[in-house]
Amino acid sequence: MAAFTHEITVGWADCDPAAIAYTGRIPYFALEAIDAFWREVVGADWYALNLDQNIGTPFVHLSLDFSAPVTPRHKLACAVEVARLGATSISFSVTGSQDGRTCWTGSFTCVFVVSDTMTPREPPTEIRARLAPLVADR
Amino acid sequence: MAAFTHEITVGWADCDPAAIAYTGRIPYFALEAIDAFWREVVGADWYALNLDQNIGTPFVHLSLDFSAPVTPRHKLACAVEVARLGATSISFSVTGSQDGRTCWTGSFTCVFVVSDTMTPREPPTEIRARLAPLVADR
Amino acid sequence: MAAFTHEITVGWADCDPAAIAYTGRIPYFALEAIDAFWREVVGADWYALNLDQNIGTPFVHLSLDFSAPVTPRHKLACAVEVARLGATSISFSVTGSQDGRTCWTGSFTCVFVVSDTMTPREPPTEIRARLAPLVADR
Amino acid sequence: MAAFTHEITVGWADCDPAAIAYTGRIPYFALEAIDAFWREVVGADWYALNLDQNIGTPFVHLSLDFSAPVTPRHKLACAVEVARLGATSISFSVTGSQDGRTCWTGSFTCVFVVSDTMTPREPPTEIRARLAPLVADR
Repeated sequence: MAAFTHEITVGWADCDPAAIAYTGRIPYFALEAIDAFWREVVGADWYALNLDQNIGTPFVHLSLDFSAPVTPRHKLACAVEVARLGATSISFSVTGSQDGRTCWTGSFTCVFVVSDTMTPREPPTEIRARLAPLVADR
Repeated sequence: MAAFTHEITVGWADCDPAAIAYTGRIPYFALEAIDAFWREVVGADWYALNLDQNIGTPFVHLSLDFSAPVTPRHKLACAVEVARLGATSISFSVTGSQDGRTCWTGSFTCVFVVSDTMTPREPPTEIRARLAPLVADR
Repeated sequence: MAAFTHEITVGWADCDPAAIAYTGRIPYFALEAIDAFWREVVGADWYALNLDQNIGTPFVHLSLDFSAPVTPRHKLACAVEVARLGATSISFSVTGSQDGRTCWTGSFTCVFVVSDTMTPREPPTEIRARLAPLVADR
Repeated sequence: MAAFTHEITVGWADCDPAAIAYTGRIPYFALEAIDAFWREVVGADWYALNLDQNIGTPFVHLSLDFSAPVTPRHKLACAVEVARLGATSISFSVTGSQDGRTCWTGSFTCVFVVSDTMTPREPPTEIRARLAPLVADR
């Protein structure tokens, strides 16, 4: 299963005085890629899930390993995979690369909740049906 | 050894439509606390280290576990500890809490480099002398 | 009437490759100072106004003139004044300075609304009572 | 002359508890559109101008008028026009609209400088040649 890829244009605004993307921007990029995955692969982004379906997916964990700086010289390709789909949780692997070189890899775990009460819930059947085939073989 | 604590005022600007601090803001808060540690405990923040001493400390790893939402209702106390001091690397533990309740815990590892060439180096003697006594007993 | 002053610690995270605070950060700083004014002078910040009192103050205008770069070398002092208080609107003047030198000046106009319907309203009597004496003599 | 248009996907990360894009994000969006104008119309973005040509374009003024909230429900189309081209300065008009409705309009003035000394300069001939035909008739 090919990973979903979200492309980001890195700019001056993202860079610090070392002339590379500021470390704090990398989690933002990864989260933007996961939100794009929801919108383009599942059919509803975080905004629509929360406001229209009263479903939230708060994060309980994230980790990132950095292997090369991110700069505005190339597009940043963010590949998103579903690493694990639990009863009430989902884990993503996200890899950021520029010009074919991996810059960082990350792991992200979210839980499904009823938005307005923050109580755990299972994802709706139609969302599970879209996610299940995408779980990466490991 | 008491941890250094950096206090952050969380505001409307930090919050998403769920009325809690956006996930992507939490790494920013933790990094802000580490930069404050450099400034207030070591005596030079990232800006001064880079521009005045040509020393950079790029991140090679970060991870965060989230246990409670962050909101503007209370100050966010960020406790920073030196978890490990290697020959050319340093690891921090950062814990964010509000009103006495832990909201998130994080681990962060940086390497010491010559800023303009990004080659690894040992920290200067006077910086090591300030950091060494702070390494947390584990 | 002395202006309310909100102090900001500018850091590496705020700076771009020119080693000065990124232009887009300046409106953030000014808005942070206005939110601090609400919290510390009026007694309720934007978060409390919206969530507890169903009052919003969306912006209809902002303008900024920049006269000197902002850097992490000094604290950024943001002086907030009430320039005008209308029936359903309020205008602020905000000046940012470092080490006694003005870096930027800004004008900001907000309208008072019922948050959940976004319809204009007058501010509550007790809020007007706190704001009225602060209107700058011009 | 049709304006250059830069499209932005607004997301959860950009929104505040009022479920609309936070005011402080709007200047970011406008600046992102201007940086895209440099990259796609002139051929070098702020990063390349600064690092490769030692040319900076710091802002001396910005103003924004807001007429409708920005949300993730539609793409944000940012139309960028050159309003004025002076000897050592340039002014842009930027209009943000969603689903055909104007959300905000902005004016932005920058000066051309030698990056490393921050002294004013004229833009290079080839950059002026690209910009001059784009100045909006008023």
